[in-house]
Amino acid sequence: MRARILELLRRHSGNYVSGEEISQGLGVSRTAVWKHMRELKHSGYIIEAHPRRGYTLIQAPDALLPDEIRTRLNSSILGREIRYFDSLESTNNEAKKFAAEGCPEGLLVVTECQNSGRGRLSRGWFSPAGKGIWMSVVLRPPFSPQEAPKCTLMAAVAVNNAIREIAQINSGIKWPNDILYNGRKLVGILTEMSAEMDAINYVVIGIGINVNIDVSEFPEELSAIATSVSAEVGSKIDRVGLLSAILKHLEKSYTEAIQNGFGRLLDEWRAQSITLGQEVDVIGSNRKFSGTAVNIDDDGALLVKKGDTLERVLAGDVSIRPSAK
Amino acid sequence: MRARILELLRRHSGNYVSGEEISQGLGVSRTAVWKHMRELKHSGYIIEAHPRRGYTLIQAPDALLPDEIRTRLNSSILGREIRYFDSLESTNNEAKKFAAEGCPEGLLVVTECQNSGRGRLSRGWFSPAGKGIWMSVVLRPPFSPQEAPKCTLMAAVAVNNAIREIAQINSGIKWPNDILYNGRKLVGILTEMSAEMDAINYVVIGIGINVNIDVSEFPEELSAIATSVSAEVGSKIDRVGLLSAILKHLEKSYTEAIQNGFGRLLDEWRAQSITLGQEVDVIGSNRKFSGTAVNIDDDGALLVKKGDTLERVLAGDVSIRPSAK
Repeated sequence: MRARILELLRRHSGNYVSGEEISQGLGVSRTAVWKHMRELKHSGYIIEAHPRRGYTLIQAPDALLPDEIRTRLNSSILGREIRYFDSLESTNNEAKKFAAEGCPEGLLVVTECQNSGRGRLSRGWFSPAGKGIWMSVVLRPPFSPQEAPKCTLMAAVAVNNAIREIAQINSGIKWPNDILYNGRKLVGILTEMSAEMDAINYVVIGIGINVNIDVSEFPEELSAIATSVSAEVGSKIDRVGLLSAILKHLEKSYTEAIQNGFGRLLDEWRAQSITLGQEVDVIGSNRKFSGTAVNIDDDGALLVKKGDTLERVLAGDVSIRPSAK
Repeated sequence: MRARILELLRRHSGNYVSGEEISQGLGVSRTAVWKHMRELKHSGYIIEAHPRRGYTLIQAPDALLPDEIRTRLNSSILGREIRYFDSLESTNNEAKKFAAEGCPEGLLVVTECQNSGRGRLSRGWFSPAGKGIWMSVVLRPPFSPQEAPKCTLMAAVAVNNAIREIAQINSGIKWPNDILYNGRKLVGILTEMSAEMDAINYVVIGIGINVNIDVSEFPEELSAIATSVSAEVGSKIDRVGLLSAILKHLEKSYTEAIQNGFGRLLDEWRAQSITLGQEVDVIGSNRKFSGTAVNIDDDGALLVKKGDTLERVLAGDVSIRPSAK
């Protein structure tokens, strides 16, 4: 109901809506309207109440509140349930708990701040309060576990499309699923799954986006390799708008993958890649070599040309050679 | 300490060991020895105490007690931690919880009875109290998620070797990992994993063995397709002995796979298979066909010859045609 009240206030943005109108329009009592307004103010909304004219929304809080997300949701599966936290150890860990307990597909876990944000292979992820989007989505795809790596590429395409749409910058994807702009990282994606050998129980897609982080705020070891959307655009970014764009694009890609397979998505990945065509260094668990990244195959593996042979890379670190940047 | 006392009693099987001898041999007080004896009796051990001669073990309880397992453990990684329950919903679910909380590799979860025992693809598993081995083991293998299906085949080989060793029957493996004797199921294995796209967090291998179930005890719908080790051998089977043989064989196979890859294990699987060479019906999520099972490939997929083509089966149900049984 609060989401619907907010929607109404937004529709009349700049004007007042009377309590009577809200009450009749949404079928709730005047007292209920008054109580919802009190709670919205408590959550950080600035709402002006005028005795005769009614209510007007002056400013929404800069927070990824469920009510805020719901009023701007353009997806029907992703985000239909939202779990919001002021702070969390890690959104992926929390989402995995909900998933193991049987939560519905599309559950979104979002937090203002991660205390132990995780990147790939147990690395850390800098996740300061109120400055990023730290989120995880639970999927229950009908794919086999062997197809799960393609979920990662699918997520990268969706998030990159959302950033390009909202921030209007030409960001690109570094294999498998980092999003970079001008050679610096904007987004990290950590996909985890629980599976039987021939069926996926659930996939959790964790997305960390440096949205409104000032470059001076990054820890020293990150300052040369990380950046934020706002730093590149030069102005503050609407986090809720970006989050709902991500859910929209991710749902579109996911539905496409279920209905038609990953073919078109892998093509989109190729078109948005900044890795293909570059000289790369590959560091795997038991090999280390350099070569030219030439393509990804149907399984999402990176194909690296090393002399006359084509090496298939499904795991490990791939860095683009500085000289080639 | 209780495990060491039991070991001492067993070593003097048929004879008495004095409290003094136990106390000095294991470096504990006489009072402590007395307390441990009381607890062992409480757990179901029948121990005779004679005022002058000391203690003698008359009978161990028919239960998969950690002390009992520990005194007969022939593995060093698997079973080094044991969690025992009178009853559980499912050992795999419990093991996954311990694994997610960071338990060490090799943790064994064992129970007398499962209330919601699970087979593959969310099917049920009949798990009556005190009559079977319902266990799960947590591994943290250095394999990629793509190699996980081979863990399932590895487990089947290890369990089949243990059954052949303990029961001296010529049981065989039905692809991927059921163990059958005379066409009826003795063992089901359910392997689950939690993984990032390029690294496994943990694998849980759940093993359910019909050990001392009388054929008349099976639910009607299982009576034609299930049997138990004791029913085939004609006498009661020592469950702890079988369990420790499984841990021994599984650890051997696992160590082999880490050090030398899966090559030898897949050969062993082929040699113990009852599926290869048979006419089979394959029912997958989007296909259904019949053919001859001719081999498994390096990924553990079943290769089925259908006319002139060779179909690769990684998931789904494969049943051996009754006529060919």
